[in-house]
Amino acid sequence: MLALFFFLVLISSPFHLASALDFCVADLSLPDGPAGYSCKNPSKVTVNDFVFSGLGKVGAINPLIKAAVTPAFSAQFPGINGLGVSLARLDLLVDGVVPMHTHPSASEVLFVVEGTICAGFISSANKVYFKTLNKGDIMVFPQGLLHFQFNSGTTTALAIVSFSDPSPGLQILDFALFGNDLASAIVEEVTFLDDAQVKKLKKVLGGTG
Amino acid sequence: MLALFFFLVLISSPFHLASALDFCVADLSLPDGPAGYSCKNPSKVTVNDFVFSGLGKVGAINPLIKAAVTPAFSAQFPGINGLGVSLARLDLLVDGVVPMHTHPSASEVLFVVEGTICAGFISSANKVYFKTLNKGDIMVFPQGLLHFQFNSGTTTALAIVSFSDPSPGLQILDFALFGNDLASAIVEEVTFLDDAQVKKLKKVLGGTG
Amino acid sequence: MLALFFFLVLISSPFHLASALDFCVADLSLPDGPAGYSCKNPSKVTVNDFVFSGLGKVGAINPLIKAAVTPAFSAQFPGINGLGVSLARLDLLVDGVVPMHTHPSASEVLFVVEGTICAGFISSANKVYFKTLNKGDIMVFPQGLLHFQFNSGTTTALAIVSFSDPSPGLQILDFALFGNDLASAIVEEVTFLDDAQVKKLKKVLGGTG
Amino acid sequence: MLALFFFLVLISSPFHLASALDFCVADLSLPDGPAGYSCKNPSKVTVNDFVFSGLGKVGAINPLIKAAVTPAFSAQFPGINGLGVSLARLDLLVDGVVPMHTHPSASEVLFVVEGTICAGFISSANKVYFKTLNKGDIMVFPQGLLHFQFNSGTTTALAIVSFSDPSPGLQILDFALFGNDLASAIVEEVTFLDDAQVKKLKKVLGGTG
Amino acid sequence: MLALFFFLVLISSPFHLASALDFCVADLSLPDGPAGYSCKNPSKVTVNDFVFSGLGKVGAINPLIKAAVTPAFSAQFPGINGLGVSLARLDLLVDGVVPMHTHPSASEVLFVVEGTICAGFISSANKVYFKTLNKGDIMVFPQGLLHFQFNSGTTTALAIVSFSDPSPGLQILDFALFGNDLASAIVEEVTFLDDAQVKKLKKVLGGTG
Amino acid sequence: MLALFFFLVLISSPFHLASALDFCVADLSLPDGPAGYSCKNPSKVTVNDFVFSGLGKVGAINPLIKAAVTPAFSAQFPGINGLGVSLARLDLLVDGVVPMHTHPSASEVLFVVEGTICAGFISSANKVYFKTLNKGDIMVFPQGLLHFQFNSGTTTALAIVSFSDPSPGLQILDFALFGNDLASAIVEEVTFLDDAQVKKLKKVLGGTG
Repeated sequence: MLALFFFLVLISSPFHLASALDFCVADLSLPDGPAGYSCKNPSKVTVNDFVFSGLGKVGAINPLIKAAVTPAFSAQFPGINGLGVSLARLDLLVDGVVPMHTHPSASEVLFVVEGTICAGFISSANKVYFKTLNKGDIMVFPQGLLHFQFNSGTTTALAIVSFSDPSPGLQILDFALFGNDLASAIVEEVTFLDDAQVKKLKKVLGGTG
Repeated sequence: MLALFFFLVLISSPFHLASALDFCVADLSLPDGPAGYSCKNPSKVTVNDFVFSGLGKVGAINPLIKAAVTPAFSAQFPGINGLGVSLARLDLLVDGVVPMHTHPSASEVLFVVEGTICAGFISSANKVYFKTLNKGDIMVFPQGLLHFQFNSGTTTALAIVSFSDPSPGLQILDFALFGNDLASAIVEEVTFLDDAQVKKLKKVLGGTG
Repeated sequence: MLALFFFLVLISSPFHLASALDFCVADLSLPDGPAGYSCKNPSKVTVNDFVFSGLGKVGAINPLIKAAVTPAFSAQFPGINGLGVSLARLDLLVDGVVPMHTHPSASEVLFVVEGTICAGFISSANKVYFKTLNKGDIMVFPQGLLHFQFNSGTTTALAIVSFSDPSPGLQILDFALFGNDLASAIVEEVTFLDDAQVKKLKKVLGGTG
Repeated sequence: MLALFFFLVLISSPFHLASALDFCVADLSLPDGPAGYSCKNPSKVTVNDFVFSGLGKVGAINPLIKAAVTPAFSAQFPGINGLGVSLARLDLLVDGVVPMHTHPSASEVLFVVEGTICAGFISSANKVYFKTLNKGDIMVFPQGLLHFQFNSGTTTALAIVSFSDPSPGLQILDFALFGNDLASAIVEEVTFLDDAQVKKLKKVLGGTG
Repeated sequence: MLALFFFLVLISSPFHLASALDFCVADLSLPDGPAGYSCKNPSKVTVNDFVFSGLGKVGAINPLIKAAVTPAFSAQFPGINGLGVSLARLDLLVDGVVPMHTHPSASEVLFVVEGTICAGFISSANKVYFKTLNKGDIMVFPQGLLHFQFNSGTTTALAIVSFSDPSPGLQILDFALFGNDLASAIVEEVTFLDDAQVKKLKKVLGGTG
Repeated sequence: MLALFFFLVLISSPFHLASALDFCVADLSLPDGPAGYSCKNPSKVTVNDFVFSGLGKVGAINPLIKAAVTPAFSAQFPGINGLGVSLARLDLLVDGVVPMHTHPSASEVLFVVEGTICAGFISSANKVYFKTLNKGDIMVFPQGLLHFQFNSGTTTALAIVSFSDPSPGLQILDFALFGNDLASAIVEEVTFLDDAQVKKLKKVLGGTG
């Protein structure tokens, strides 16, 4: 009898109204804002919005860098939108490298699942923090600083990297410098690189100008 | 004469364009995002968006817990959207109790308006902070920690509670464990509770499985 | 037997190390920082750090404004440090007034415990949002905007106000303009008030210059 | 050959999906939220969204205050939306003044480009921080506090001011007190100003009531 | 020659002064604050502050739950202090379980390194989001909500979990309810559990009262 | 008489205790934390803590880049600590350049005070946003992205830049790649630059290895 009363009251509880804001699954068809994507209607959210299987297999290896970076950011994994964290999978073949890069809005922590990885970052004071990481080691790369990873072992390496933002961004230095239409003369002026070097890498990376 | 000049210039002031962002009254018909609900058109906002009378009377008492919790969160009180604070009213009949619960995204401060309330929270280190509060006392419950309140006096108690978030959420332990379709076997596995105990409370709280 | 094993493992759990950051009770004898006061040693924290009785009685009435504002900010209530919320008690005798003021870093919500209070705020667009509040009503004053409250009834009024910051600050307009050594000529230049008016109020409020 | 491979892989890089959140150019035709305006479709963003020329000339001088404040906030300069900073230009003719005002949600730093400016702010403790600034000097005005600037030299002054928020708001004390329909009797009650003073300034500033 | 000039100027660059704030390695001997631990003197920071090997081996298995949770939070891994992210390692023997728990200040993402794990969380609306996760799957648990994981396979399972905070906290429900001195009568009043059940589990978990 | 009463009450106002947190002037002799430097004792703070004259003259020109960047960050301008904004002065001789760089934790807005400046940034999607800016123009560079500025006119250029953080950091690409002890072989591996190019620039910029 009491149970019945309780159940009826529960059903009409005003707290149910507030529950939508436990999470904000990204609805990519709605406008996004400075804090992330708009929320999917909570009544249509299922557990599958919070689960992602895209990190379960080797990513699409880029033959030049012999590596793949597979993101699980808000755009790929909508359940993570607004929750302040995201993941990516890093596959490094032998001699594979994730070239010098930054994440504009996030710190990163790397966990070595398999293999041996050399990793480093450079501070605003131009000091290098560099280390060889073995299976099970973790290393943190503070927000916005240039950093890199490469396979220093004799077998394929696998790492899982975590970010402090659901859309951390990724700016790979070579793509930024040589993979677009920024005129060679300007690249040279702002990097001190030689003209031949710039043109050579523009050719490799598909840049023009 | 100067006054006229001044008035005319004032009317065309570019600052009027920016004023919409003094506040962001929730428009529940628009998409919401990680930082809260979209804003109602400022030209349609009135003082009534910033005033709420729903905490002025005793809430709908739940007969099993002899208590009522009446929220003034963004969903009920749209003027508070985006402003980092919200309120709720807590009515406790004699023997009334707000069972063990958490607010997933907010700290809480309780002010005893009438009566005597026992309250406590438990830290991550499993230490209990417990106290009997009299009229006029306040107590803070840090973000995300399990806490509870019950009437320890001989008269009805009334409290006003404040939160550090306009949509703090509310997860009542018993409802979470026993008021849904989470299978009894799983509840038992992850809580160490006995099968009979789980099934008894599932029956009381309308759970299935 | 199993219980013993479990207990022993529990005692040495590495999670106990992390528990200090559930909360950060203010230690006013240590340096403070942009995010608040330094934390009291967690081993010395007791439930009394999280409970405050200073709002339980009528504050020290200021005879000119016939009102008292009693804060429970981090400096008075150290358990609230870092938790994103704070409270104050507002007592208004008949004809009492909390003069025009701002909180530099917080929004405010007012709950009328007893009596009738007129309250209002002014937006950046110079629009006035003004209402008479009765017992049980709440009103929100968005961050940083000028606002005021006065007793519009025939009995003493009591309100509890909540803030979205543990140290919201309070800048009362008259004290800021007339209660310090800012030269009258400058006050007049930046407020357009008449010299006689400025000097009259400086005298009342203890200002010089 | 390798270059071709690399280029093809680059084109299909999953990271391109995430790039929209490097920035969030305001689209004023979409709903706004607590964290700012919704984002313009990134494919339609051009460099012109990130450049603004409106601060390049003297603003519309208000003849009473002999000054102009020209904002480059999100509403005028959409590229700055969500980026935590904004600018404004301040022109002060001889005897020009920016009257006592606050920015409800931002701190301000002023840089003197030309001329001599007296500036000050008042703390919550009612202490005045006041200084004469020469060309090249900067001064910071902490968030939400009353402050003012006036030309103390014999030539026109120019300053660039920066804010810690893309929509800092601006509440000019005189406009807030005397430039709207807040009844004179209430203004007097909450400011202690004389009736004649209030009515005189209401007339100047276009207020009613 | 130019190089020499450049080098000399570089050495005296004022930017070197600001570099300390790229990161804030925790110095546990200094006071902590609401935003984290105080920073170690940057001149004494080495790459070893940013690398941690404690997640590289199976943690100390708790025999009752047949599981181990090994944290890399600020207190164990000082380089992560202030950077908005942290990790932990989760080892689950066959039949192992991480009992129902919350992280008071963080969302969590779990990556299955080996084995099969059933995981679920419960929303404020008491809806259960539950799924069986295989090797390579990830699942997100939104901030502050009750969740659990258990090994549903026939081999040991290993997961790496990431948090949106460097000190996420961990509150395990059974320890909070039964592993301290909260009186049985109070536990029963705020959980509706039977006296026999409470006392049985208090005995297992070392609780008193 | 009333005035005297009022003055006496004012003197003992509890609000004076809270005023310290209006601002947090950096005390570089105390420990810093993730949110910035510890606060100078407020009783010793003067207006001079909030004023800085270091941007009033041409900075120390670096002969190789024919430019100077003079910061007013927390370390140079302690009054700005914790306030979410900072400034720097940029002097560009004819042919002067601020080479490709990032600010790890801040967005930047540039205001052209004198001259003509070409500026650009590159997004995570490798798109270039590039423009010639004239006197009075402003341009925003979103957080963490590579950007650059150079004098494209025939006279000295001067700009004031604002940041969304009091300690934005500055990482100049060439210094990071070539101005430290990161081994040439590693630089080459993670940038695809030729050995001769790397060694040439290491020589210019004082790098070793």
